[in-house]
Amino acid sequence: MSRVSIIGACNTPFGAFIERNRETGAIKDLRSYYDLLVEAGSGAIRDAGLEPGEIDAVYVGSCSPGLFINQEHVAPVAVAIDDALRFKPMTHTEGACASSSLAVYEGVYAIESGRNRHVLAIGVEKMTLLDTQGVTHALACCSYNPEEGACGVTFPGLFADLAKAYQAHYGFSEAELRRMLAAVSGLGYKNGAENPLAHFGANSGPARQKLFTADAILALPDEGKGANVMIAPPLRLHDCSLISDGAAAVVLTRTDLAKKRGRPFAEIAGIGHSEEHFPLSRRAHKHALEATRDACDKAFKEAGISLAQVDLAEVHDCFTINQLLCTEALGLSEPGRAGHDYLAGRFTREDRCPVNLSGGLKAKGHPVGATGASMHALVYKQLIGQPIGVRPIKQPEVGVVVNVGGAAVTNCVTVLRRSE
Amino acid sequence: MSRVSIIGACNTPFGAFIERNRETGAIKDLRSYYDLLVEAGSGAIRDAGLEPGEIDAVYVGSCSPGLFINQEHVAPVAVAIDDALRFKPMTHTEGACASSSLAVYEGVYAIESGRNRHVLAIGVEKMTLLDTQGVTHALACCSYNPEEGACGVTFPGLFADLAKAYQAHYGFSEAELRRMLAAVSGLGYKNGAENPLAHFGANSGPARQKLFTADAILALPDEGKGANVMIAPPLRLHDCSLISDGAAAVVLTRTDLAKKRGRPFAEIAGIGHSEEHFPLSRRAHKHALEATRDACDKAFKEAGISLAQVDLAEVHDCFTINQLLCTEALGLSEPGRAGHDYLAGRFTREDRCPVNLSGGLKAKGHPVGATGASMHALVYKQLIGQPIGVRPIKQPEVGVVVNVGGAAVTNCVTVLRRSE
Repeated sequence: MSRVSIIGACNTPFGAFIERNRETGAIKDLRSYYDLLVEAGSGAIRDAGLEPGEIDAVYVGSCSPGLFINQEHVAPVAVAIDDALRFKPMTHTEGACASSSLAVYEGVYAIESGRNRHVLAIGVEKMTLLDTQGVTHALACCSYNPEEGACGVTFPGLFADLAKAYQAHYGFSEAELRRMLAAVSGLGYKNGAENPLAHFGANSGPARQKLFTADAILALPDEGKGANVMIAPPLRLHDCSLISDGAAAVVLTRTDLAKKRGRPFAEIAGIGHSEEHFPLSRRAHKHALEATRDACDKAFKEAGISLAQVDLAEVHDCFTINQLLCTEALGLSEPGRAGHDYLAGRFTREDRCPVNLSGGLKAKGHPVGATGASMHALVYKQLIGQPIGVRPIKQPEVGVVVNVGGAAVTNCVTVLRRSE
Repeated sequence: MSRVSIIGACNTPFGAFIERNRETGAIKDLRSYYDLLVEAGSGAIRDAGLEPGEIDAVYVGSCSPGLFINQEHVAPVAVAIDDALRFKPMTHTEGACASSSLAVYEGVYAIESGRNRHVLAIGVEKMTLLDTQGVTHALACCSYNPEEGACGVTFPGLFADLAKAYQAHYGFSEAELRRMLAAVSGLGYKNGAENPLAHFGANSGPARQKLFTADAILALPDEGKGANVMIAPPLRLHDCSLISDGAAAVVLTRTDLAKKRGRPFAEIAGIGHSEEHFPLSRRAHKHALEATRDACDKAFKEAGISLAQVDLAEVHDCFTINQLLCTEALGLSEPGRAGHDYLAGRFTREDRCPVNLSGGLKAKGHPVGATGASMHALVYKQLIGQPIGVRPIKQPEVGVVVNVGGAAVTNCVTVLRRSE
């Protein structure tokens, strides 16, 4: 089996790329799904220094485009990148918020199979054309509908269940948990402020600026302007990631071909992909993510790398509680200790292993289908020494992506290693 | 690269598995998406003589479940097949009506990569919970929305465009084209009547019985009871495939492992997957399917097999015109000759190369996401000498699947060869 590496990447800005007419309420799409997909795809090909015709196959990860933009069949949108892509195989992968990690993985397998030399894996979503109710419905279709979505259960509600189980299992008080979660958002906002591509980043308005610590977030009012309103107890507004538009892409090739290029790249050293029981009701233990842990174990085993060697991680903070759970699943914190660790100031750029230097889904934004590809793209940029946003103290050699779909039902973990 | 083979398959019955309450109009789901997926998946594992725990990965092809049943995240539904599948990788592929051929292909690549020994590829769709308007919308999301779906263009409309282009290019009269298309439906209905799993088959009501010839279909009234009403000129009701529920699955493994089992199986000898420009407006030639032809060429080249060796084909008759176009793309008819060939009685079970012995999408039914897997499953059953429905004169050795998504935008062609 040939090993596979990332040799190029592109991440579009993430944001709400719409303009609302004040009089009519009509929405103008400033950067469409189609624009974003093509921008990321052609950007990654250019970044890799390839001609479009050198791409042998395309995978497009997208979560719910049929509901978000009335476009269910999406892979062939990539033909618009360049006429040279006409007649190439293109496949849409879906795995909720892990949709485009799956695109990366299918790209890896397609190269390992010997069928392809260069594969383009794109992630894309356009969420902001729908109102909040529409977005909530589209996302709820990623839960186990018969028991969850169809019964009015939303994703904030599902992750609130996990938060309550976590709190109960470890005996935290309400106030303790709230502080822990606020520490997670604070770190995300702090890192995000230096990420020029972030939805809530350097260019965002003053409303969310300087929320860089747990204390700053805890000081927000519960009601009124700038409030940190309750969404699904114990989760508040600032525990939830953003509804965003955006795309990201990576170009994959065989490691032996990557080595001939004479410049740094990132090898996909290990992949772990594990599916959990779909209904949350089937899970015996809700205070920990067992399938995410399983995916981590697989990825590390394949990579032959230990956690001690990991220099940075991007983990799935769709909700702050999930960043705690993922940090524990990865082993960066002992069970029940992640909250304390974040409160103690760990996982910042100064840490041995910084987490979510991009700002995470909380600050970078979370265009659901784009997130997995974006995590791979940004870790790649860190590993080749061209970080977008915060640069860690020491040049990282090994990075990890932890991307989950649904309430950690689809779990995708990738270990990436710098090489040249 | 190891070769890959099908060693087990299951096709659920296709049909409209709902019951409408006469008084309230409420719909009862008699065989849900979840039921169908599990039935096909566990059936295929059983048919292969494997334990569920021997499956290393699952691919689920489904077209538009977010719109059909409010369930967008679907691959983890397969965990319900058996607890032994928990933690296995599962990936949803989408390519409109070719969604589950893509599931088969990703399964092939995952085995060729060396990562997996046994892969389960499932196709599934539940369409009948929506009314016709809802189904039309869900399917229109598989067109290029900005120019087509969003502008009121439906799939009957898109294929009507292809029919008009075909008619114009070859100078057929309206009556000639109508006869040709009717010959295609007649053959589908005739074969479908012997397929116990068909939606419009042995068990269907008398309304569509005995429409076994072009003449029988042409004799139908234009209006009133049992009419062959115009849907999108020149396409009429009996030119359109059915709105169905159903699922199908195949089990894949390395050919060297299949050979040790001491019973017939079908090798995936060649795959062709080609994407066309997405907007129909971008196509210079609408009287022929260039990308389908390209996919056929690739599949035959990989298989090292010529058309003369092909013993049967299942081709994508979402509309009768597409069966003519696919028959020509495959090379079974010369350009512009497929209509004459069907009228002359070719491609029946007595032919050198029968087409759509299953009844095709027209009679078997077309649960869109299930269709690709179903085509592979039924050709596999034919090749191992256990046909479901019509048996050809001589035991076939080589079969071809031509499955397209959208207006032949995603094109999937598989050459299968009997082996033991």
